[in-house]
Amino acid sequence: MRHLKLLTAGESHGPGLTAILEGLPMGLKVKTGKINEQLARRQEGYGRGGRMKIESDSVQITGGLRLGVTLGSPLSLWVVNRDHDNWTRSMSPEPVRGSNPRPVTQPRPGHADLPGYQKTGTEDIRNILERASARETAARVAAGGVCRLLLAELGIGIFSHVLSIGGVKARPDYSDLTALAAAAGQNDLHVADEAACKRMKRTIKSVWGDGDTLGGIAEVIVEGLPAGLGHYAHWDRRLDSRLGGSVLSIPAVKGVEVGPAFENAHMRGSRVMDEIILDKAAAKKGNSRFKRNTNRAGGLEGGMTNGQPLIVRGAMKPIATLSSPLASVDIKTGQTVKACKERSDCTAVAAMGVIMESMIALVLTDTILEEFRSETMKDLKSAWRAYKRQVNRR
Amino acid sequence: MRHLKLLTAGESHGPGLTAILEGLPMGLKVKTGKINEQLARRQEGYGRGGRMKIESDSVQITGGLRLGVTLGSPLSLWVVNRDHDNWTRSMSPEPVRGSNPRPVTQPRPGHADLPGYQKTGTEDIRNILERASARETAARVAAGGVCRLLLAELGIGIFSHVLSIGGVKARPDYSDLTALAAAAGQNDLHVADEAACKRMKRTIKSVWGDGDTLGGIAEVIVEGLPAGLGHYAHWDRRLDSRLGGSVLSIPAVKGVEVGPAFENAHMRGSRVMDEIILDKAAAKKGNSRFKRNTNRAGGLEGGMTNGQPLIVRGAMKPIATLSSPLASVDIKTGQTVKACKERSDCTAVAAMGVIMESMIALVLTDTILEEFRSETMKDLKSAWRAYKRQVNRR
Amino acid sequence: MRHLKLLTAGESHGPGLTAILEGLPMGLKVKTGKINEQLARRQEGYGRGGRMKIESDSVQITGGLRLGVTLGSPLSLWVVNRDHDNWTRSMSPEPVRGSNPRPVTQPRPGHADLPGYQKTGTEDIRNILERASARETAARVAAGGVCRLLLAELGIGIFSHVLSIGGVKARPDYSDLTALAAAAGQNDLHVADEAACKRMKRTIKSVWGDGDTLGGIAEVIVEGLPAGLGHYAHWDRRLDSRLGGSVLSIPAVKGVEVGPAFENAHMRGSRVMDEIILDKAAAKKGNSRFKRNTNRAGGLEGGMTNGQPLIVRGAMKPIATLSSPLASVDIKTGQTVKACKERSDCTAVAAMGVIMESMIALVLTDTILEEFRSETMKDLKSAWRAYKRQVNRR
Amino acid sequence: MRHLKLLTAGESHGPGLTAILEGLPMGLKVKTGKINEQLARRQEGYGRGGRMKIESDSVQITGGLRLGVTLGSPLSLWVVNRDHDNWTRSMSPEPVRGSNPRPVTQPRPGHADLPGYQKTGTEDIRNILERASARETAARVAAGGVCRLLLAELGIGIFSHVLSIGGVKARPDYSDLTALAAAAGQNDLHVADEAACKRMKRTIKSVWGDGDTLGGIAEVIVEGLPAGLGHYAHWDRRLDSRLGGSVLSIPAVKGVEVGPAFENAHMRGSRVMDEIILDKAAAKKGNSRFKRNTNRAGGLEGGMTNGQPLIVRGAMKPIATLSSPLASVDIKTGQTVKACKERSDCTAVAAMGVIMESMIALVLTDTILEEFRSETMKDLKSAWRAYKRQVNRR
Repeated sequence: MRHLKLLTAGESHGPGLTAILEGLPMGLKVKTGKINEQLARRQEGYGRGGRMKIESDSVQITGGLRLGVTLGSPLSLWVVNRDHDNWTRSMSPEPVRGSNPRPVTQPRPGHADLPGYQKTGTEDIRNILERASARETAARVAAGGVCRLLLAELGIGIFSHVLSIGGVKARPDYSDLTALAAAAGQNDLHVADEAACKRMKRTIKSVWGDGDTLGGIAEVIVEGLPAGLGHYAHWDRRLDSRLGGSVLSIPAVKGVEVGPAFENAHMRGSRVMDEIILDKAAAKKGNSRFKRNTNRAGGLEGGMTNGQPLIVRGAMKPIATLSSPLASVDIKTGQTVKACKERSDCTAVAAMGVIMESMIALVLTDTILEEFRSETMKDLKSAWRAYKRQVNRR
Repeated sequence: MRHLKLLTAGESHGPGLTAILEGLPMGLKVKTGKINEQLARRQEGYGRGGRMKIESDSVQITGGLRLGVTLGSPLSLWVVNRDHDNWTRSMSPEPVRGSNPRPVTQPRPGHADLPGYQKTGTEDIRNILERASARETAARVAAGGVCRLLLAELGIGIFSHVLSIGGVKARPDYSDLTALAAAAGQNDLHVADEAACKRMKRTIKSVWGDGDTLGGIAEVIVEGLPAGLGHYAHWDRRLDSRLGGSVLSIPAVKGVEVGPAFENAHMRGSRVMDEIILDKAAAKKGNSRFKRNTNRAGGLEGGMTNGQPLIVRGAMKPIATLSSPLASVDIKTGQTVKACKERSDCTAVAAMGVIMESMIALVLTDTILEEFRSETMKDLKSAWRAYKRQVNRR
Repeated sequence: MRHLKLLTAGESHGPGLTAILEGLPMGLKVKTGKINEQLARRQEGYGRGGRMKIESDSVQITGGLRLGVTLGSPLSLWVVNRDHDNWTRSMSPEPVRGSNPRPVTQPRPGHADLPGYQKTGTEDIRNILERASARETAARVAAGGVCRLLLAELGIGIFSHVLSIGGVKARPDYSDLTALAAAAGQNDLHVADEAACKRMKRTIKSVWGDGDTLGGIAEVIVEGLPAGLGHYAHWDRRLDSRLGGSVLSIPAVKGVEVGPAFENAHMRGSRVMDEIILDKAAAKKGNSRFKRNTNRAGGLEGGMTNGQPLIVRGAMKPIATLSSPLASVDIKTGQTVKACKERSDCTAVAAMGVIMESMIALVLTDTILEEFRSETMKDLKSAWRAYKRQVNRR
Repeated sequence: MRHLKLLTAGESHGPGLTAILEGLPMGLKVKTGKINEQLARRQEGYGRGGRMKIESDSVQITGGLRLGVTLGSPLSLWVVNRDHDNWTRSMSPEPVRGSNPRPVTQPRPGHADLPGYQKTGTEDIRNILERASARETAARVAAGGVCRLLLAELGIGIFSHVLSIGGVKARPDYSDLTALAAAAGQNDLHVADEAACKRMKRTIKSVWGDGDTLGGIAEVIVEGLPAGLGHYAHWDRRLDSRLGGSVLSIPAVKGVEVGPAFENAHMRGSRVMDEIILDKAAAKKGNSRFKRNTNRAGGLEGGMTNGQPLIVRGAMKPIATLSSPLASVDIKTGQTVKACKERSDCTAVAAMGVIMESMIALVLTDTILEEFRSETMKDLKSAWRAYKRQVNRR
């Protein structure tokens, strides 16, 4: 990120997660309840394992907020790990008396376990897996939750929905994005196609029974972005790169596309480009005279928003911790073994969508704070309104 | 990037392109001929337009190199735009006498033209398109060419091949990557499947005749990477993110995946994870005792290399400048028009593969220089060898 | 910083201070008691006000540490503000019932109060001063305390001593730096000249009685640095810049010099340069054959360490909060008033020295982690020893 | 820097210097003649050696500028080294036939020579000194020259004057800064005290005759900055740090202070703080109602500008290359020798002042572009005017 700075800390079974978000304006109202809603969305979904039942995340803000309003100073967020109570000895930050906890030595394929061991030579793979765990993303959802509030004040809305799980595909209706968002909110898999949702649950149930896992594809849609955010003039300022890179930083996400990019790659240019249409009616009402009837670009052209909804899809591999574990090799004994188990989920595509929303909210907020005067929310809103008027006049 | 810094400058029809690459070790031998080979690879391919015939790029190094060896100081690279001779008046950096050049006012769908205008209000879209042009990537290929030389000294090889153009798919043989690379080098489309290559050319010819354009998918493969490069401990240090973000910074690339990520998303975990196999024979020879029989992870686990070939695919949309232009709106007159034309290609997927190689070479070099002592190439090679031995013993 | 990332958060009277330090190696033993010693040193010193009596800082590590050893993941540090108990209503992060706390409207000259108000238009200067307060530096001392432990494992020691307070100058004996450090440790003003220390206390007492304040100069000395850390090849990599910039980031520090730079500026080159002497005896013992008999460069040449002790001085202005307040203007009423009072100190030069040590420890750790392989402390120590041998052979 | 990115490249006797400055707005008029004026100012001054007579620097802009106006894309600047003609063999970027040039093996005290050798083990110290040379600052002056033009459009003026050379101190009259600037412009040492200037020249002449060198102190003054630029909320955003760090990145500058910081450190708070005065007359005219009668803070409070002139001083050590060389040790033979000579100056304090101006112009531009909307100069000027009005109303 260029203006905002985000650091997160905390292990999966340590005392909790900390995030510091530096660079916010003064004057943003932050209701922690609103952030907790996002944390709850991240935890839900058919196919989630036991931990989700143990704990319900909530955030505490310890810096940067006064009387519910940001100060413009760094915001510090704390999400306690309720599960830590079961791990006080093994995951104590401070030394403990007695012998060391039993080390994890049987790396799981698909995880950081083996390359992390090979990188560091640690004798206990827990020293790797505790931080490589997707638990860390709760801190990002908390920080992203703050950004969502900021974006909301600018009229920008973000939601996600699940396009496929385990090969079962949804066929959502894109003709009305508000309805699409509502439909996705009506089930715990965030699928905007009720029939597909049911089929997905059946598939999950069956695969779960086999001790196996599933991945899938989720799509984030952002509405309310004016044209011209982001930049074309330098490679590291293009929004495709910044957004895509942020989505690929989510554990288990290995593919990303802006709009239907892999499909577009097989088509002719005349079918892919979103033609520029004159919209006299809109112009008369003071809105932009430029219109598109299609959105195959996913809302980005030349590394910038083009005024259409932003559409980003992420491909998540199946959860790498299987309850019927795969073949592995013990790093200590050198014997062929089954990989270790950590309590885990069968699938978490809906959660991945929520985390994608959070990363995208962070990157968009970063871009907006970078491009507009943003000492205070008042400054920002005033600059934002002026820009939107400007764009509409052009 | 975290250790290396890369800035590029220069417009498509300006005097030339400049790149500065800061952070290289002292002592790397740089043959400019080797960089020119990469620049030539970027220019080739059936389906390229007239400009490729006008000019054959070559690089001049003006700083950071002495007697053919890097000094450890910033490297400055200059690639002249031979086409500038035809644009001396319109694209002069200095003011010119007489009236201004005729402005471009008819934005092309799919380009930076319209959002760039909406962002800045410029009266001449040439002020946007000259820098948003893919010409800029020649500077990246030059800088990436230097990184390739460094990687080669560490035993790391990079190549790319084209998987599909305009919906025509290649079926390359992955059983021998050396042979695959060689096959891809034998035609100007970089397709490691001769029959598919011919079909692609037929398709290109036909579409070109229609004044239309095509996109496609290219894949970069990197061999020689030991396990453990990159990091799992913080979101912005994961290699998936850094590599994917860099690929998405290439104009017209809108999708990226590490390994067959979109396919993996539809499968069960037990079919996707690359099981960890004990390789006693390798261990006896002093190589790593851990083996994988599959590589669905594309060489990355937990944001780190896992010792397998790195595999990254990029999806390129069709070229956005059509010789049978699409509908647009003139920004000055407000009339419905056809989009302007700039001299352009019908398709450039092979070139995109070369640019992907360059970006990936830059990111991998960045990661290696960050992680290993690299004041001099001697330092780096010694640290590299020691690490490879260490990994093999683990 | 280039490799390490440090964010801090927390207001002066908020719940506490948070720091996240990203980029540490795995395997560093961290005793929180050692960090608390530094926090205590930051709080001591004749001339400190009431708050220092209320609270004795201690750190809690909530992430990045397991069983007393770093994991290589981001370290999160928490220092509770004990004084917050007296401010739960006015400084609550969450909204409170009832009317808002009474705003601060009378800016103190020399503080962020007035420019912060002018920047943001806030109606309550407390929204500025809570974060602009030097309380924030406790978080830096905690983070720097971790770095000191790392540096100590490499044989690098850091201390500071006070050169002057309120115009009273110490004349410490530099012939034995160990003795100098010990002498500075024997009084709470950290002055390595007992007689001067007494005179300083008398001056402080008298000025304090007048409701006035004092500044002074402290000097940090770092021993154990081999030649060649830092870089000459790019402006933002020079250690003078990185160290000096970090010292100037401390509130109230407005001047910095490496060695006696302002004095050197008045002398001839032949008197300032530290001549390079052949030290045959050292060479025989396997130490560096190059020696200097003087250290007017303060240990840095060409932006790099030169093997001599590093010497950095900071000039602190008097504390800006006076108990006999200065003239001001009420931002609400527009009337001429006396500036507001916050509980404050008469002088805090010894504390400033400790904070300087912390910032310098952070920058040096950053430089070392950037330049040497540092996945684990074992890697780092091994690379460090190899480099020291190399330097001695050159 | 946070918004702007600056890389420079090029060796002292290589083909030339390159700079890329990324992040400028579209629409800034750049006259290269204006930049050349600054390059000329950097080269002048009694006490400069032969090279200044050989060459007169001029800049060529090869990217980011069209018809004399910035495009908002990265600006590339090229300053040819006319002296390279005398070094084509020894400093050729490409390999040359025949034997290698004779290596430099006798390090100069006070330079990067010895620590650079110790860091890298190079056999030819020229591989270090060519980039460590102050020649590189010409690229910064060129880039800073562009920033000065931008600042000028916002009503911000920068100048420097020399306060002392070789112990001879100027006593300039600060009552009228315009007159001070004019006086400093009337001699080639940039001393705003004609009598002191003459004494300095006599001193230089005498010391030069001895084969010795001198340093000194220069002061940069910036007028036209409104209150509230910079930030108090995070350590790395404070302007004292950013400005001071940038000044300390200039070769040979080892000390820096904002206002008379070292003097302030010896005084009482009541004498140092600039009291806040109600200025009813100014308020009536629409200017700020807050006034200061003193400026001991040097224009910065709480890491922000406070509306007063910004005053930054740098302390330069004497030039480290003496024509009567100091003692050294040959790195190859291990013999005690005299240090090598490179053609050099006796003193260059006036030039250092110009380079300080450039670095400060870069940092201030960076801060302003970061804080205000700055896609185009029109955007920036409009946001700037609005902010100045706002500050005046507060």
